[in-house]
Amino acid sequence: MSQTQLEAARAGQITQAMRQVAQAEGLEAESLRRAVAAGRVAIPANPAHANLEPRGVGQGLSVKVNANLGTSPDRADMAEEKAKLDAALEAGADAVMDLSTGGDLKAIRAQVLANSTVPVGTVPIYQAAVKVTGEDRGIVDLTADEMFAVIEDQAREGVDFMTVHCGVTLSALERLRSEGRVTDIVSRGGSFLACWMVANKKENPFYEQYDRLLEILRAHDVTISLGDGLRPGCLADATDRAQITELVTLGELTQRAWDAGVQVMIEGPGHVPLDQVEANIKLQKRLCHEAPFYVLGPLVTDVAAGHDHVACAIGGALAGWAGADFLCYVTPSEHLALPGPDEVYEGVITTRIAAHAADIARGRAASIQRDREMAEARRRMDWDRMMALCLDPKTARAIRSGSMPAEEEVCTMCGKYCAVRLMRDYFRPGEK
Amino acid sequence: MSQTQLEAARAGQITQAMRQVAQAEGLEAESLRRAVAAGRVAIPANPAHANLEPRGVGQGLSVKVNANLGTSPDRADMAEEKAKLDAALEAGADAVMDLSTGGDLKAIRAQVLANSTVPVGTVPIYQAAVKVTGEDRGIVDLTADEMFAVIEDQAREGVDFMTVHCGVTLSALERLRSEGRVTDIVSRGGSFLACWMVANKKENPFYEQYDRLLEILRAHDVTISLGDGLRPGCLADATDRAQITELVTLGELTQRAWDAGVQVMIEGPGHVPLDQVEANIKLQKRLCHEAPFYVLGPLVTDVAAGHDHVACAIGGALAGWAGADFLCYVTPSEHLALPGPDEVYEGVITTRIAAHAADIARGRAASIQRDREMAEARRRMDWDRMMALCLDPKTARAIRSGSMPAEEEVCTMCGKYCAVRLMRDYFRPGEK
Repeated sequence: MSQTQLEAARAGQITQAMRQVAQAEGLEAESLRRAVAAGRVAIPANPAHANLEPRGVGQGLSVKVNANLGTSPDRADMAEEKAKLDAALEAGADAVMDLSTGGDLKAIRAQVLANSTVPVGTVPIYQAAVKVTGEDRGIVDLTADEMFAVIEDQAREGVDFMTVHCGVTLSALERLRSEGRVTDIVSRGGSFLACWMVANKKENPFYEQYDRLLEILRAHDVTISLGDGLRPGCLADATDRAQITELVTLGELTQRAWDAGVQVMIEGPGHVPLDQVEANIKLQKRLCHEAPFYVLGPLVTDVAAGHDHVACAIGGALAGWAGADFLCYVTPSEHLALPGPDEVYEGVITTRIAAHAADIARGRAASIQRDREMAEARRRMDWDRMMALCLDPKTARAIRSGSMPAEEEVCTMCGKYCAVRLMRDYFRPGEK
Repeated sequence: MSQTQLEAARAGQITQAMRQVAQAEGLEAESLRRAVAAGRVAIPANPAHANLEPRGVGQGLSVKVNANLGTSPDRADMAEEKAKLDAALEAGADAVMDLSTGGDLKAIRAQVLANSTVPVGTVPIYQAAVKVTGEDRGIVDLTADEMFAVIEDQAREGVDFMTVHCGVTLSALERLRSEGRVTDIVSRGGSFLACWMVANKKENPFYEQYDRLLEILRAHDVTISLGDGLRPGCLADATDRAQITELVTLGELTQRAWDAGVQVMIEGPGHVPLDQVEANIKLQKRLCHEAPFYVLGPLVTDVAAGHDHVACAIGGALAGWAGADFLCYVTPSEHLALPGPDEVYEGVITTRIAAHAADIARGRAASIQRDREMAEARRRMDWDRMMALCLDPKTARAIRSGSMPAEEEVCTMCGKYCAVRLMRDYFRPGEK
């Protein structure tokens, strides 16, 4: 291909993707182009992903939501994966990641790419790991060439963004060991690389041969999502020396990717107490020169298993308000099992609530207006309009129709004692 | 009765209730006594509530969670109310409110008081309203004596705290009208009083005869929860002149209640955007001289119907971190229907996550320790211990047992590619 979105933007060109994103966001295309040129916005849009409707991630745009999909060795079913993708799209995900590690990975990915209208991300090292373990070798027996081969394959197939844990370096691992963490590494890709490095006594190939990686990504305009392999896996490990060391490295790698014409996002924690969330966002924005920040949660407690989507929404809302651009969802199954379609739906909706609350706090006019229209519909007791304005009309309708009041105007919470109606009748009689 | 907790504390006496609360919170009884004497902590404990295990609400204590129960005209079933109470207690609610407006209110309240080991609250004006509408009169036909009679009855029966909307004054209503709100009043009790005042062209009896109210409450040590009848019902109305005018009045009434020996909590919003939550808490603490703050949410968006418990958890976590003491839950049914037992359970757990996240951010050692122990259990892959440490073991166990991995040590999210196990085997081999 000729140019990445970043290169085109730098050359002063407004691409079709930029126009589509600008329109969706209610921005001038030229101001979006400048943000892409500066690296503050990424548009993950591999030209080989045929039916993609591009989305932008970054400063000045609405906060986006990603849904992690994919099989595991214990649970690999093509039909279920299709149902999960459908659930994510129905719930309004802005991106999906296929994180499969079970079944026919290439076929599953092809199914996702063929059916996803939103950007598709992967963590290519997973496929490399599955390949070697299927050959009765271990993850530590992978060769660097095998790792790069998977990246090239997936780039050619049309993957829009890839998580690569380039910041898991030997020196970061040394810092991790000396830090004395409770949970060393909980990132799957990060642990694969760390174990490979320890077993082989070698530097991370994605760090050592970073230019080789960038060359492949640039050729297909794959956005690199610089993975945080050392993200904290519990509150006790949050914002520690290991995590921040990796982040400093990711800042250096951001600049090198931009120099090579590759679009960048930075991945962030993880498990972070409420009072450290804002600092994490400000730090990333400074160290990575305003590159889009993609946070995995953050979860604000470790003891919410079964409801970790809620712990994630709390942290995500705060992170988005502080400047995070892209929230990775968590489902009620997190820390317990692979989610099914219902959990995927719930996870996306919950994270969209967090993203929307953050957009409002950041002053985004369209988001504020939506809530105002909902309030006006409530005042008018206009149920059709209320349902249309809900983030999840399907669930809202089901709850209401499962418990209908005697008088259709109100609801069964208060029935004839509805405060809104009383105020209309007594406080503002005659007004609409 | 002889003395309220507040009067006893001022007299230098450590009551049995203070001892129980101090032990539950890991505090010295004497330091708790000082906080009660200063009004910074309330212990809602009506001596007539026989099987009560007292809880404290306020500064220096863990953040507490309330579950609203009760019937409505459209849905009134004693057995369902019992199931809702059981669900709230099983989920770990620290208090419940019986907000019934349908069926035999006295019998329902008796059932709650007999079966609740946690403090029970009510909004007495509801019963007065139900009584007159049952007599073919309207709410506006109530007499002040009828309003006070209900309060005296409920105090005698053992209700531990009562919401009374004393701050809905004629001058506040004038300010409300001139403010130009989107949703004038969404508080049910607030709307009853406002309509009564407008129709009768009279001042709020609970404001005008506040001393009479305090005398009843003092005699039974009922904690007054000064209701926020003018709380915002949507983000557009948050933190406006009407709301703050009422809060200033509540500050004055706090001082008068303390002077009369009555324990006080202050109720707060409502619907508040993320970026206004902290200001709301700081303002209440200053205007009401550190009286315990009981927030109803706050919901950080208006468009989350079907998932308002999540919007509430986001706002509640932030509020708790900023200093709110007591979070009123919201269920997935909010704005749509009266909740059933399952929604009550979900609402309590979700709000407990918010309260726990706030406790951690406020530096509460026991809360931080619980999460640390969970992280250590995860590192050891000790599933029994993980389940024991969960806020909701029941749901966590159900999710895990619904999707069991081939190897029991891990879970179906990653199966044999478990990062925690890889790190144990390669990064720290030989360590426990």
